Amino acid sequence: MDNKSSFNVKDERNLTMLVDFYELTMGNGYFRKGLKDKIAYFDMFFRRIPDDGGYCIMAGVEQLIDYLSTLKFTDDDITYLRDKHAFSEEFLDYLRDFDFSCDVWAVPEGNPVFPNEPLVTVRGPVIQAQFLETMILLTINHQTLIATKANRICRAADGRPVMEFGSRRAQGYDGAIYGARAAIIGGCSSTACTMSDRMFNIPAVGTMAHSWVQLYDTEYDAFKAWAEIYPDDCVLLIDTYNVIKSGIPNAIKVFNEVLKPLGKRPRGIRIDSGDITYLTRKCRKMLDEAGYEDCGIVVSNSLDEHIIKDVLDQGACINSFGVGERLITAKSEPVFGGVYKLVALEGDNDIIPKIKISENEEKITNPGFKKIIRIFDKNSHKAIADLITLRDENINENEPLIIFDPIHTWKRKKIKNYYTKELQSPIFKSGKCVYKSPTVLEIKDFSKLETDKLWPEVLRFENPHTYYVDLSQNLWSLKHSLLHKYTNSYEAQE
Amino acid sequence: MDNKSSFNVKDERNLTMLVDFYELTMGNGYFRKGLKDKIAYFDMFFRRIPDDGGYCIMAGVEQLIDYLSTLKFTDDDITYLRDKHAFSEEFLDYLRDFDFSCDVWAVPEGNPVFPNEPLVTVRGPVIQAQFLETMILLTINHQTLIATKANRICRAADGRPVMEFGSRRAQGYDGAIYGARAAIIGGCSSTACTMSDRMFNIPAVGTMAHSWVQLYDTEYDAFKAWAEIYPDDCVLLIDTYNVIKSGIPNAIKVFNEVLKPLGKRPRGIRIDSGDITYLTRKCRKMLDEAGYEDCGIVVSNSLDEHIIKDVLDQGACINSFGVGERLITAKSEPVFGGVYKLVALEGDNDIIPKIKISENEEKITNPGFKKIIRIFDKNSHKAIADLITLRDENINENEPLIIFDPIHTWKRKKIKNYYTKELQSPIFKSGKCVYKSPTVLEIKDFSKLETDKLWPEVLRFENPHTYYVDLSQNLWSLKHSLLHKYTNSYEAQE
Repeated sequence: MDNKSSFNVKDERNLTMLVDFYELTMGNGYFRKGLKDKIAYFDMFFRRIPDDGGYCIMAGVEQLIDYLSTLKFTDDDITYLRDKHAFSEEFLDYLRDFDFSCDVWAVPEGNPVFPNEPLVTVRGPVIQAQFLETMILLTINHQTLIATKANRICRAADGRPVMEFGSRRAQGYDGAIYGARAAIIGGCSSTACTMSDRMFNIPAVGTMAHSWVQLYDTEYDAFKAWAEIYPDDCVLLIDTYNVIKSGIPNAIKVFNEVLKPLGKRPRGIRIDSGDITYLTRKCRKMLDEAGYEDCGIVVSNSLDEHIIKDVLDQGACINSFGVGERLITAKSEPVFGGVYKLVALEGDNDIIPKIKISENEEKITNPGFKKIIRIFDKNSHKAIADLITLRDENINENEPLIIFDPIHTWKRKKIKNYYTKELQSPIFKSGKCVYKSPTVLEIKDFSKLETDKLWPEVLRFENPHTYYVDLSQNLWSLKHSLLHKYTNSYEAQE
Repeated sequence: MDNKSSFNVKDERNLTMLVDFYELTMGNGYFRKGLKDKIAYFDMFFRRIPDDGGYCIMAGVEQLIDYLSTLKFTDDDITYLRDKHAFSEEFLDYLRDFDFSCDVWAVPEGNPVFPNEPLVTVRGPVIQAQFLETMILLTINHQTLIATKANRICRAADGRPVMEFGSRRAQGYDGAIYGARAAIIGGCSSTACTMSDRMFNIPAVGTMAHSWVQLYDTEYDAFKAWAEIYPDDCVLLIDTYNVIKSGIPNAIKVFNEVLKPLGKRPRGIRIDSGDITYLTRKCRKMLDEAGYEDCGIVVSNSLDEHIIKDVLDQGACINSFGVGERLITAKSEPVFGGVYKLVALEGDNDIIPKIKISENEEKITNPGFKKIIRIFDKNSHKAIADLITLRDENINENEPLIIFDPIHTWKRKKIKNYYTKELQSPIFKSGKCVYKSPTVLEIKDFSKLETDKLWPEVLRFENPHTYYVDLSQNLWSLKHSLLHKYTNSYEAQE
């Protein structure tokens, strides 16, 4: 599992200063109040699956590791911060000598994940653990959003390859680069983004734009020139002028005149505008009649999972899809709402769980140092449920397990004949990296395997069944005792 | 107008390989077909204003300049490309010795811009001009999208400062960093993104998170500790437990006990959840009654222009806004659809205009080497219309000017007593940079000035008047002659 060859480009930026300013004012506060060595636990989790889907695909851990491995304040950073007149010299010294010492756990990339599960857990000095908030959220939110969207689109394509084509419409350079990475994890076959291939060994592909066709006096001349240069991999873009009247007849003519004498077969035609169903069916017929039954049809015009499903249902003849802006920005729901919350503090001999109350029930956090257990059926190997437990709980797989809905607690289920798997892996111990990321293509394969363990009802494209994510009895009791404690303290004030 | 002090961090990445792979296969094709020195003209433009607004705010030119100034293929890039087995050795040599020689024009950042206007125009060898497509689009699309969204949100805030708080939900690191830059250009007063301040000298701000409050045994202890550390700049987050029952009474208590004895005034309280109108009115009353009429109220919970307008209409008492995910991702419409199209080729002695036809009328391009003229009324100094003309056209400001709708050509308007301004500025000549970017804060001020020159009907928040963007008679005639020529050539085939 060699992660990157030395040949691959690495992102060499120091992103230490990519932090919300309040992490620094709080850090200075903790320092001033003698709390710098206070050990805190934070969880990163999300509350809702975008597009009302059944699951999300975890992504971004490799970049999180890169960031945590390179955390460092330069002298110029310190000078900049001093000029803000908000920080003590002692705190600035602390930052200059920043010695990352946290423990970090994360769900490995490619795993299907669900609301309220701690995707990343950090234990360490509160200044440090707090400081990581922005980058943990930014990294995991972005890539998980795109991997999840890509997964939806690829499922809609029903086995046909989906190429990621969105760089030009991405939200910034990293939106393109890491977005393409996440798209592959979510199931895309390739990307147009050369930089992503260069960095992550994911296949970059591409043929021609309309400008190639426009540059020549006639579409025929443009196609002929292209076929002469790329006879082994000839894909022609046929919608510059008029697909049916001009594009497809010229393409067939060039296949006959240039490729056939060389004994080559065309690889495909691409359509980037117009009525996809009508045009692809007509093109398929014309290609078949001309003896090019093996010539693929690529489609690429403002596609998303809904349009792909629709045109396939209507009988469009498509071999592969290029999907751009609606994938790379997750256009239908472009925000992944991950949050990072304090869940515990360490006392001298114990862990003190912390809870964030809210009048909005779903915003109340799960307190304590926790883990996620995924429960599989021994016969089908399908995932039955996830159980969030306190970190020190153990499940005896030889005994039946009773799980219950954390809101409607009378809804109970007894599980027998199962095995369990802990979802989080340690990625840093005492500030040292202990995890080696798989390659992106390995993660993609892993994701396919793990996703296939979900029941079809959860995988369903629309109105999926809600996968069970329950709390252990201990965690549930802890949470409710803290809730009662806080509620009582308000009532006492009244 | 010193753009950056040497102290500022610069993005040192080489983004040369951030290119759609087809730019490279086309480049190789141009090279193989002896077209490498063919001079081409490309325009970058967009077709529709996001959120059905009245105008967009141009942004991203400084980053485009950074990119064009550092274009370079490394030896490893060449090795990587060779391994693709798609490129000739001669083409790879060309890339290794890539000598950027294009002329580039762009509309300076901060200007209001409109559909179909060439925001960026490139003239140069077709391989080079084509190669820039991805980065021009990616850079301008992203920042223009966010600057435009920020401008909407700031207008809704009606003079109250808007802080950009979205890093954690941005689409990748650059989404946060350059998104914050664009947000300032669009009118935001500050950002939470420290890195953006570090890079662009835009003010980074921040106070505390809920975790600060949770870390202490009581909310009161947490507030007291904060006020002791930051007596001069004390903003308390009052919604960790319960705003009215706990947060605001504790805040007032701490203002009285900690700040008052020091002779300090509190700067503000912040509310991040709940019913904004109800809570801010109640908090305002409680603060006023306690003698803190000057204490600001900051609100920051999933805001956008619509919510801001609504709560202000309802009489919410708010002094400033923190806006996160819906600004930094332009959530309501997260794609800016800029395109980059071939518009002309150079012959031996002339410019040969090129057009891209489409069955979708609005996708038909404006051919030729062009410029944008903005026409102002001499008395009011308001912008009356923009006129897209061929590059060599001149307008005699002493004569009345007749403009007409390019679709409904009978709709004509005679303009007198006007002056004109050319919108594009040269930014590269023969591959050398000839433009010095203003600072971000200068661009922000410039944008305010230029936007104020639009009529209120165009600035309107919803259902704005469509600003006139017309074609000169020469350009209109050229376009229509090319359209007829192509249409005739199809009919000849039938």
